Amino acid sequence: MLMSKLFVQTLREFPNDAEAVSHKLLVRAGFIKKLTNGIYTYMPLAQRVLSKISNIVREEMNSSGAQELTMPFVQPAEVWQKSGRWAKYGKELLRCKDRHDNEMCLAPTHEEVITSVVSDVVNSYKQLPINLYQIATKFRDEIRPRFGLLRGREFIMKDAYSFHTSQEDLEREYEVMARTYTNIFKRCGLETKAVQSDSGAIGGAVSHEYMVLTDTAVGENDVFYCDNCDYSANSNHAISILPKETTNGAEYGYSEEHIVDTPNTRTISELAEFLKINSDCILKAVAYIYDSKPAIVMIRGDKEVEETKLMNALNALEIRPMEDSEVRELLGCEPGFISYKNVDKTKVKVLFDLTTKGMKNFVVGGVGKDKHLVGANLEDDIKDFVDISLVKEGEYCPKCHKPLKVTRGIEVGNIFQLGTKYSEPMNACYTDEQGQLKPYIMGCYGIGVSRTMAAAIEKYHDEFGIIWPMAIAPYHVDIVPVNVDDPEQKKIAFEMYNKLTDDGIEAIIDDRSDRAGVKFKDSELIGFPIRITVGKTISEGLVEYKIRATGETIKLTPEEAIQKTIKTVRDNVKKSA
Amino acid sequence: MLMSKLFVQTLREFPNDAEAVSHKLLVRAGFIKKLTNGIYTYMPLAQRVLSKISNIVREEMNSSGAQELTMPFVQPAEVWQKSGRWAKYGKELLRCKDRHDNEMCLAPTHEEVITSVVSDVVNSYKQLPINLYQIATKFRDEIRPRFGLLRGREFIMKDAYSFHTSQEDLEREYEVMARTYTNIFKRCGLETKAVQSDSGAIGGAVSHEYMVLTDTAVGENDVFYCDNCDYSANSNHAISILPKETTNGAEYGYSEEHIVDTPNTRTISELAEFLKINSDCILKAVAYIYDSKPAIVMIRGDKEVEETKLMNALNALEIRPMEDSEVRELLGCEPGFISYKNVDKTKVKVLFDLTTKGMKNFVVGGVGKDKHLVGANLEDDIKDFVDISLVKEGEYCPKCHKPLKVTRGIEVGNIFQLGTKYSEPMNACYTDEQGQLKPYIMGCYGIGVSRTMAAAIEKYHDEFGIIWPMAIAPYHVDIVPVNVDDPEQKKIAFEMYNKLTDDGIEAIIDDRSDRAGVKFKDSELIGFPIRITVGKTISEGLVEYKIRATGETIKLTPEEAIQKTIKTVRDNVKKSA
Repeated sequence: MLMSKLFVQTLREFPNDAEAVSHKLLVRAGFIKKLTNGIYTYMPLAQRVLSKISNIVREEMNSSGAQELTMPFVQPAEVWQKSGRWAKYGKELLRCKDRHDNEMCLAPTHEEVITSVVSDVVNSYKQLPINLYQIATKFRDEIRPRFGLLRGREFIMKDAYSFHTSQEDLEREYEVMARTYTNIFKRCGLETKAVQSDSGAIGGAVSHEYMVLTDTAVGENDVFYCDNCDYSANSNHAISILPKETTNGAEYGYSEEHIVDTPNTRTISELAEFLKINSDCILKAVAYIYDSKPAIVMIRGDKEVEETKLMNALNALEIRPMEDSEVRELLGCEPGFISYKNVDKTKVKVLFDLTTKGMKNFVVGGVGKDKHLVGANLEDDIKDFVDISLVKEGEYCPKCHKPLKVTRGIEVGNIFQLGTKYSEPMNACYTDEQGQLKPYIMGCYGIGVSRTMAAAIEKYHDEFGIIWPMAIAPYHVDIVPVNVDDPEQKKIAFEMYNKLTDDGIEAIIDDRSDRAGVKFKDSELIGFPIRITVGKTISEGLVEYKIRATGETIKLTPEEAIQKTIKTVRDNVKKSA
Repeated sequence: MLMSKLFVQTLREFPNDAEAVSHKLLVRAGFIKKLTNGIYTYMPLAQRVLSKISNIVREEMNSSGAQELTMPFVQPAEVWQKSGRWAKYGKELLRCKDRHDNEMCLAPTHEEVITSVVSDVVNSYKQLPINLYQIATKFRDEIRPRFGLLRGREFIMKDAYSFHTSQEDLEREYEVMARTYTNIFKRCGLETKAVQSDSGAIGGAVSHEYMVLTDTAVGENDVFYCDNCDYSANSNHAISILPKETTNGAEYGYSEEHIVDTPNTRTISELAEFLKINSDCILKAVAYIYDSKPAIVMIRGDKEVEETKLMNALNALEIRPMEDSEVRELLGCEPGFISYKNVDKTKVKVLFDLTTKGMKNFVVGGVGKDKHLVGANLEDDIKDFVDISLVKEGEYCPKCHKPLKVTRGIEVGNIFQLGTKYSEPMNACYTDEQGQLKPYIMGCYGIGVSRTMAAAIEKYHDEFGIIWPMAIAPYHVDIVPVNVDDPEQKKIAFEMYNKLTDDGIEAIIDDRSDRAGVKFKDSELIGFPIRITVGKTISEGLVEYKIRATGETIKLTPEEAIQKTIKTVRDNVKKSA
């Protein structure tokens, strides 16, 4: 491809609205163009990257035995009503009406449709297991689309759904998909970590996320992992062992239950300081509104609430912290002095975090403004504890008790054991060997194709631009004649271009009459893995061969540069086994 | 692929709601599954066909110099308001509101977005010409979706858009696309005819449709063509020379203008019979409502109105014939006796078809109930005539005057010279050599990818099922061991399957324990181009090699059958030149 013909526009400045590195670079290097909030055109350079990722996904999915199909993007309400998600899925599900006033929606995911398709076709256990996938556009009407392709509204996803007659067979396929996913990302040049995660709106009991670990990614989740064993989990799902599992206010002289005056102690730290007690001896209350109803979460004073866990515990669609005026109105007490003690439990939902179980002689509110109860203990009838706390660095691995580490991770894929979450409400059944109707046991498996492109940039970039892994680079090599008006430079450059292209190498030749500096800057910004510069040294029969990732530059003859390019490309672009 | 594992369900019966052959066969052979009206899941067999068509399209478009990108499916109203189509596009444009109440729509086509993208990137004449394409899902909310994939609501389309500095350069690219289209369809195994056509909602001056000619397709347009020269046109655009260009009522004795009683002559044939005159001497009036306003079309009595032409002439979004009650109310006269003579032209739009120009001493209504004026002539001030008549078989070619022929055609592609229809209202300009801002001169080029799959079936089928052209067949060959419990049959069949697969041939092996008759029926219904049957004759070292298209059956050794299959596939699946 001639650079002068390539439909691309690189920009001098980063876009104003971009926070994430991948967003900045995708726009500045001319890969994407915004149409409206969270909706982008994939320009030809991005299209090539996406095609390569899609083809890798397709090859690996096919060789795992899955079959490709394509399901509709525009879907009728009925199928979502059957599963119960028409009511449950929030505003991310964009709904509309067709010209005949039928309720429709834009697919954010396809569990409903695939379950309906399979239940039409698969009647007998003999037809199972089956795994079906598609690579298609999805739409999620995010409340605040941002970070470019990392949290867009319209995006490209590979989604697969498997159907089984037993949990064991689902687990077998889950392992197959886990291996397939590791291969897919490895072929894309990305090391991933499979971490335990929350199942979110998709549901199901067991799920893992495939994370590209990188400290810098903004807006992405923390991942807690253990260097000593294989434990790792998204912060929304991570559990830990606390360095101090039990705490006792008696250590601070508060062994007898009584009320003390604690003026102006609205925060945990103010209260701890005032009482000369460690915050882990304070039973903290945090008030929330969930689906328009009030809730109080009781948690140890040194811990924070993990809101995804809380949403799950409340089985809520939406949650938000309670405002001060709501605390006064709904709980009847002063913010900073609330607790489970003085609320009407028939009207306010009360949850106890697991961390509260090990507390003795604690400090707690709920006894009026500017007062706290000290030396308190949980009543014997409080028996239900749930895990709703956020793990902190320094806490211990739940499997091997070594210290947990934390890093930022970008989710590029996820796998779920759904069980019968969809097949049961949708009455999607097969006949088993005994002639009994049984709901399918299902799994589902997603890969964010456009997200993977962005994640690769988050992982591989420097101050000059993108550094594409060879396997998903839009072109393998950029040939730059320094001066296109020099007949010798031009001739050698085009000869190399033609030879490489004939050999199946995807090459750009920068035939523009711009200054060399401009061409080099674009080359580094766009991130071609190899640059071959044909400049003055061609009089000595040499060109410059530069590796984008390392900056390593060597002088080679044109023929050596061609051979080195071909070898490098072949070594790095693996075909499916 | 093992037939026992393939995710397919063939049906014994055709679907009730199907009229078109392709619809019936796509459903019965398990290629598509209906989700709701006009919206289908493409099952794995269809997915393979669609991938092959898409790849052929992609290869040929790339080698023509076009560049692939992907534009959003969900689009904001603003970009459609800029072009003026937000108001003009009817209900086929499905509109919705996002969670922030922004008006959005689902893309039925992408002229607006591509014009906006290009105007961001292309500022100078030096960057032109450019041709950009995508293969993507589109949505058109058809009022009556039917005929399966031929008139669905959600469908797959290749759409390309080119940008130029001159009409000449647009015409050059138009010719490139014309050749590319002929190649694409030829590679898909389809002969097409490029016919002149109406530009419809897309607009522009010159356009051609690529038609697969087949007499049987229901719901598709008629194509008029000339065997003597290259003239051919969609009936919505065809023109002709009438065998009798001028008519004169004097031949029937009506040479003097006067009113005659014509009781109970509401139709042209009743009137012609009553007056003993040929219908071509009657000036017929047809009343319409267009965009809620009344119109009368005057046309020669032996001709019919072509409603697409009429819509264009009226620049209307919607038209429908006027009802009798409306005739009385809006025109103030009795149905059957209307004409331009007695209507208020400030309130009723009157159009004269070209055919009325050659009429002398005609019969016309508009002089009251049960009366007609005979021996009438058009007033001298009637000077505007428009072509709004439907061509009939037997009329003559407008280019060479030989008789026109008619056939049914399925549109699979179209090419348009848009000119500045979008760039001007959207103010999408480049700077020319003189430094002047000029709107781009544009072309656009569509291929219905899912429609092409259906058209192939309309063209190639018989009473037993589909007959796929090799290049787009879901699999090349179906290997059928008659009895899978016979170890010899099974062994030979699997050996052949493995050898063919290793050689890149896409093979099915029907490993099901069903009766041979069931397997043969499925094989013919699905339409695999070659079937190799391994049955009792294997004891003589022979298998049966059957060509689906011709029914020809020959006995071959397994090795001969393998070689013949490989050769047939290679000969019929051409790579891009």
